[in-house]
Amino acid sequence: MSNPVLTRSPRAAWARTIERSVLQEMLEASAKPGILSFALGLPAAELFPIEEYRQSLNRVLSANPRSLQYGPPLQSLRKQIVKLMELRGVRCSEEQVFLTAGAQQGAHMLTRLLLDPGGCVVTEELTYPGFQQVLQPYRPRVLSVSTDRGTGMNVDELERLLNSAERPSLIYSVTDGHNPLSVSMSLEKRQQLVQLARRYQVPIIEDDPYGFLWYEKKSLPPLRAFDEKWVYYVGTFSKMLAPGLRAGWIVMPEELVAPLSVIKESIDINMAPFTQHVVADYLATGHLEKHLDMLRHEYSARRDALHLALQEYFPSGAVWQRPTNGVFFWVELPEDVDTGDLLHVAIETEKVAFIPGFAFNTSAKPCARNTMRLNFSHNSVELIAEGIARLGRCLKRHSLVSVKM
Amino acid sequence: MSNPVLTRSPRAAWARTIERSVLQEMLEASAKPGILSFALGLPAAELFPIEEYRQSLNRVLSANPRSLQYGPPLQSLRKQIVKLMELRGVRCSEEQVFLTAGAQQGAHMLTRLLLDPGGCVVTEELTYPGFQQVLQPYRPRVLSVSTDRGTGMNVDELERLLNSAERPSLIYSVTDGHNPLSVSMSLEKRQQLVQLARRYQVPIIEDDPYGFLWYEKKSLPPLRAFDEKWVYYVGTFSKMLAPGLRAGWIVMPEELVAPLSVIKESIDINMAPFTQHVVADYLATGHLEKHLDMLRHEYSARRDALHLALQEYFPSGAVWQRPTNGVFFWVELPEDVDTGDLLHVAIETEKVAFIPGFAFNTSAKPCARNTMRLNFSHNSVELIAEGIARLGRCLKRHSLVSVKM
Repeated sequence: MSNPVLTRSPRAAWARTIERSVLQEMLEASAKPGILSFALGLPAAELFPIEEYRQSLNRVLSANPRSLQYGPPLQSLRKQIVKLMELRGVRCSEEQVFLTAGAQQGAHMLTRLLLDPGGCVVTEELTYPGFQQVLQPYRPRVLSVSTDRGTGMNVDELERLLNSAERPSLIYSVTDGHNPLSVSMSLEKRQQLVQLARRYQVPIIEDDPYGFLWYEKKSLPPLRAFDEKWVYYVGTFSKMLAPGLRAGWIVMPEELVAPLSVIKESIDINMAPFTQHVVADYLATGHLEKHLDMLRHEYSARRDALHLALQEYFPSGAVWQRPTNGVFFWVELPEDVDTGDLLHVAIETEKVAFIPGFAFNTSAKPCARNTMRLNFSHNSVELIAEGIARLGRCLKRHSLVSVKM
Repeated sequence: MSNPVLTRSPRAAWARTIERSVLQEMLEASAKPGILSFALGLPAAELFPIEEYRQSLNRVLSANPRSLQYGPPLQSLRKQIVKLMELRGVRCSEEQVFLTAGAQQGAHMLTRLLLDPGGCVVTEELTYPGFQQVLQPYRPRVLSVSTDRGTGMNVDELERLLNSAERPSLIYSVTDGHNPLSVSMSLEKRQQLVQLARRYQVPIIEDDPYGFLWYEKKSLPPLRAFDEKWVYYVGTFSKMLAPGLRAGWIVMPEELVAPLSVIKESIDINMAPFTQHVVADYLATGHLEKHLDMLRHEYSARRDALHLALQEYFPSGAVWQRPTNGVFFWVELPEDVDTGDLLHVAIETEKVAFIPGFAFNTSAKPCARNTMRLNFSHNSVELIAEGIARLGRCLKRHSLVSVKM
């Protein structure tokens, strides 16, 4: 009856172009024993407040078996998030808070709300690949703007774009602890960017996984602090509590909460999962601020260790800035280094991994191949020194080979 | 700078037509104290194996703090699911198992894999509204086939459709414990349906939340047991363990697992959340089969209680079948009853809720307004009798009013 010769794997047109993601490959490679990885933005598992989670888990289970049942998104958690946003310099109401299963889901749902197939969006030339994946099924026209290493997104370039091109459906921004460039946007640019969004009536998806992870001084207020109509703020507990809880939120205009609820329902039922109850309980204990202080202390020590190790082990032509936020260094190596080649050598000979900078490119323009993103939150100070020494050895061998050739 | 007169809420074209879902309204209405609800497919929270979850939660936290970290989908859980599928009469390999955050997410992701915007799909005339929500952003052409109350989807009608119309991208089927009709498909139709999928090369999304909830005798094997190439089986732990765990799976052709991984990554990161570790631990203890036996015992008692209460309190013109699977009754009332009107009266006067049958209609054809779906898994035997008595009173008053008018 069936005709095996004619059979093919069925797939939507866009899905025939799906490629395996670099980050997913790294997630699997990093899970292998023996690899010392700077590749992913992983938090430090040994710093998770396990005992406090255990207390919250058991308290929630005892108090409320319905925490495992279908039920509407938790108002108690929305209330806690309003307080948390105050720490970030943002005033919002419970009605503007929408609960998600993490920042990735937040960006995914907002894009579904805002973008038509074949529409147009603005991102930076170098940006978070997870957002590129969100865009892919829509096959949009991606307009990209450059990023200044010291002050963030090139807002003048954005203005020229908004003046000349079709109106985009959204602008994507990681304002603090930029991924991958680790820059935090200047105050002036924040204000300019929000004004552009208002004037051209283009919503901004502000992805803020790292805004609570500041080191020297408190982060500037996010874009959402300057505008509540055109900025949709995406928050997550993945970096400050734990990714395995799968809990995050959006702060957005209240009138869009109802349609977004329907979108969430279609994706995974708009309900309060068990871990949402646990996070709400944990936040109610008031432990978070102390935990964040501890994280900032630990992560800034790791950042400094990586900075010192780069100074010690990397060639003199390498350039980087010590980040004030987030979990990444962005390093520019001498021009003859191709970090794609280097990665293979590094994994094979020294069992150490990172992500080549060009993996973050969204632009059609050619992209430099001598850059890398290094994470500093995941490994201990000792392992950071060890891993950067290994990478330094690879670079030395690489430069010897380059000279020979 | 901004011009408030010109501003509007930005939204993709499809998203301007989003309507609030009946099920979400019911979820919120049912969460209000005092409403006795037969509306949703909620499991019984008092039957959750809380003590065993507590043991699993604490064991996982103690053994492995990395259970809260990013990490690849759990192989140990995929292994357990292969065994579980054997209980369902399906042979599959770990490589064919894809882990999800529940059945809704499974259907959402498969649709994204298979359906292009404006494409064509086949569903039954009356079907799960959550799947209609999945389809909405694609604005597809929905071809619908009728369902026989005793044997399931009208397969001959489907064949005529496949012969005459454009080839659909997918067929959606709830084979056992149909939602909302509660019918389980006959063996002959299962075989015919799979043959049609093969012959016309159209994949079937087989949504199976209720296949493990059989009462008199074990469910027939699902469609997936008859074909591993054209049937994509969607499973969930929501009804057999607890919805709050947000854990489910897909059994699908191995070559589609890689592209689906990229889709999942774009939606919520393709990682093992904490509760996936907990479910894997729970299954490894071997408690599930006993738990399922208990659930079947309890739910069949509730089903019988609802059946008896309908006989006692509903008017003689009401028609229903006692379901062999799942958690719903489908009741046809005398033709003069409009269940939309009845619902308002029932909530207001008797504080009792159900879902009108027409809420499940996907067809452009006019749909009978004298049907209702009643859940029997959520309430105790006593509350079932009480609630159906209340509904019976509403129906009596309704018929008096109808006579008077």
